[in-house]
Amino acid sequence: MAFSFSTDTICALSTPEGYGALSVIRISGESAFRISEKIFTPAGKNKSLTDRAYPCVVFGKVMDGLQILDEAVLTLFKAPASFTGEDTVEFSLHGSPYIRKRVLELLAEHGCRPATEGEFTKRAFMHDKMDLSRAEAVADLIHSESEAEHKIAMRQMRGGFSEELRELREKLVNFASLVELELDFGEEDVEFADRNLLKSHVQGVLKKINSLTASFKLGNVIKRGVPVAIIGEPNAGKSTLLNALLNEERAIVSDIAGTTRDTVEDEISIRGLLFRFIDTAGIRETQDTIENMGIERALEKAKQAEVVLLLADASRWNPVELQSLFERIGNQSVILVINKTDLLTVEQQMTIQQEAESRFNDVPIVYISASLKKEIDLLKNTLFESLDTSALQNNQTVITNLRHYEALKRTEEYLTKVLADIDMHISGDFLAMDIRQALFHLGEITGEITTDDLLGNIFSKFCIGK
Amino acid sequence: MAFSFSTDTICALSTPEGYGALSVIRISGESAFRISEKIFTPAGKNKSLTDRAYPCVVFGKVMDGLQILDEAVLTLFKAPASFTGEDTVEFSLHGSPYIRKRVLELLAEHGCRPATEGEFTKRAFMHDKMDLSRAEAVADLIHSESEAEHKIAMRQMRGGFSEELRELREKLVNFASLVELELDFGEEDVEFADRNLLKSHVQGVLKKINSLTASFKLGNVIKRGVPVAIIGEPNAGKSTLLNALLNEERAIVSDIAGTTRDTVEDEISIRGLLFRFIDTAGIRETQDTIENMGIERALEKAKQAEVVLLLADASRWNPVELQSLFERIGNQSVILVINKTDLLTVEQQMTIQQEAESRFNDVPIVYISASLKKEIDLLKNTLFESLDTSALQNNQTVITNLRHYEALKRTEEYLTKVLADIDMHISGDFLAMDIRQALFHLGEITGEITTDDLLGNIFSKFCIGK
Repeated sequence: MAFSFSTDTICALSTPEGYGALSVIRISGESAFRISEKIFTPAGKNKSLTDRAYPCVVFGKVMDGLQILDEAVLTLFKAPASFTGEDTVEFSLHGSPYIRKRVLELLAEHGCRPATEGEFTKRAFMHDKMDLSRAEAVADLIHSESEAEHKIAMRQMRGGFSEELRELREKLVNFASLVELELDFGEEDVEFADRNLLKSHVQGVLKKINSLTASFKLGNVIKRGVPVAIIGEPNAGKSTLLNALLNEERAIVSDIAGTTRDTVEDEISIRGLLFRFIDTAGIRETQDTIENMGIERALEKAKQAEVVLLLADASRWNPVELQSLFERIGNQSVILVINKTDLLTVEQQMTIQQEAESRFNDVPIVYISASLKKEIDLLKNTLFESLDTSALQNNQTVITNLRHYEALKRTEEYLTKVLADIDMHISGDFLAMDIRQALFHLGEITGEITTDDLLGNIFSKFCIGK
Repeated sequence: MAFSFSTDTICALSTPEGYGALSVIRISGESAFRISEKIFTPAGKNKSLTDRAYPCVVFGKVMDGLQILDEAVLTLFKAPASFTGEDTVEFSLHGSPYIRKRVLELLAEHGCRPATEGEFTKRAFMHDKMDLSRAEAVADLIHSESEAEHKIAMRQMRGGFSEELRELREKLVNFASLVELELDFGEEDVEFADRNLLKSHVQGVLKKINSLTASFKLGNVIKRGVPVAIIGEPNAGKSTLLNALLNEERAIVSDIAGTTRDTVEDEISIRGLLFRFIDTAGIRETQDTIENMGIERALEKAKQAEVVLLLADASRWNPVELQSLFERIGNQSVILVINKTDLLTVEQQMTIQQEAESRFNDVPIVYISASLKKEIDLLKNTLFESLDTSALQNNQTVITNLRHYEALKRTEEYLTKVLADIDMHISGDFLAMDIRQALFHLGEITGEITTDDLLGNIFSKFCIGK
């Protein structure tokens, strides 16, 4: 590993800005205890912070010169048994902006440097408390908004992904060693690594990496929310459907006391997965726009969608028009949603059902009444099932991080090259070089292979205080 | 004391909403440990939370059924050695909205009730961990934005104010007892309490209470910021002065890393006191408005000010006009600010100084150049000194709470009545009744005397989680 590594003592606010009962300021580094003692007087008889059984909790006064700045609870962690692997002090303060500001100023006066983004986690990485992909999962965990996102981040943070990568790396290292061993016997033209066996092993590794890169599609939509578009003739009830889907969610969200979050407009969570409706402004104004322009634009926007809800008005049933609209949609998943079923007789319903099923035989069809909020749950389930979430449900690794995806793609590239090398009977030294290249890119993910630039880039995306 | 008192176990988020490295969820009540154990598995060998030396720190996993929801650090406090006086658990979690929401849901599923506003502090009061005025100071402390505000709140939270009140109450209780003792000997017409001595003692108590109520003026401006108006002829440089006063502050505020706060427009802090400039929009547009309308409106607005900066243009020196403007200002403190001194010769400066001092001999005068930012610090000091902050500087109690102010006013009222009673030789039973009334109102402040309504009203102003 080649990177610079500062050992000074750092501090930062670790809880969000704003008013609250508590805020926590975290200090990490060699002088964490010594600096804390300068501004903190413990309440008990033991006035020292350095002579205790760790981890421990100490109540006392934060002093601003001779004035009491706050009454606080300190939690002390002794290296290496801390998040960063260094001596760490957490000041649990009253959640006042003034107190936070003064404590940070006082710590700075006594030689604490304000931490940069993600610097605590970076130090945890530096002290081998976690590898790079696990460190990145910490940031993902913090920003998780849905159960699915959280589950993936937690699995990654707990080391599930790292373990898989370690196994793959180990295999590749073995192949590389075998091939390199041949080179030492270069003149003798031996083959320790049976080429057919090697090929099938590399294929095995490649297959696993393929399934990881393939999971990025799911990982990506999980992270950003699955983009969904609603397409339909004017007055098919698009805006009513959108409200039926969204309103319920709103109510649930605001029901849980103390968990208000910045509600993102036009998102719903279905079985822990986030779905994001696109061009909802357009939908809400379609009533007023010229028909064709509305649909054209909607079709254009729908290209960004992962799933399209094609909405038909059952009371003005026109399967020919519907089919022509269907054919103008790109190659996204489509769910046919037949609305206003409440306006139909049973006979009409059966006719429509038969026609719809024969014309759209590979398309999932849901019959609803948006205005009466009938079968909205069924529609949600169908929406969820239109995605391949098997990886998620089988607790497999799902790649959500573009950096990991790109490193895996490059690994794939070199392993594919290795397979071609074998087929073309390329000599061992080139073969070994390509395996090493594959290993290099695989190693980038967990940080066996890393550079200052890479680390700087990764941790700059963290928040300060983490 | 008469109030209802729930003993169930409560929980709430104690850190602000939003993303951050950490968030803290606090649980208090009889079942705090038992409920925590349901969702938390400690990392070490000791799997119980109830069999430990408290306070203590326990690392482990928060479980959502069979899934790991988070890795967390718990801090356990055993009753009565906790903030609330009850068993308390603090979950220090990764600062993710999803994790927070799930932990609160899981706690609710296991029988924790979401805390209401200020309920933790209310419980601290109920368990005699602090009196009412100290509990209120906790909320003030959290909302402190300036050093002065913080200092007052901290003094109050530490019990300085309570102690003063206790002494005053004790004296009044003694008087009341003496007078009531006389009543027992009613027929015999004895006077245990020498009326002249009693009068002088009550006057002593009243004097102290007078100085407390008088401090409310300062307390109030400290809490809301001191309102300042800038008044002057068009082109006197009002907008330049405002910017000179404000800009410097902006730079300082944004200099301190990690302490960004919602910067309130047009506020500056001078020696720890907040000053708020009013009608700054008006000032910024004066250049464009008709002269007289501008000044009329400014004079109208200035009525809300505590201090008026009367700005004169030294380069168009017109003491007669200035004096007429001065006379139209209400009875606020005025500071005469003579601007554009950089455009004057030394001789001109001396002439103006002589004239100004003779015409405005009781008014503080500051000579500045707003555009060159000369003597802006001197002006700030003069602004600070225009207020009577002696109480603050002498570490005396400053009343900032309207409820306390009103209770003290009512106490004053009854003590004044007691003095009149004595003068009018009113009989002991009425005297005793009035002293008891004064005591009643004094007791409201610290909560010796309280009701459910009062408590509900006080704590509803707190944030949830405190």
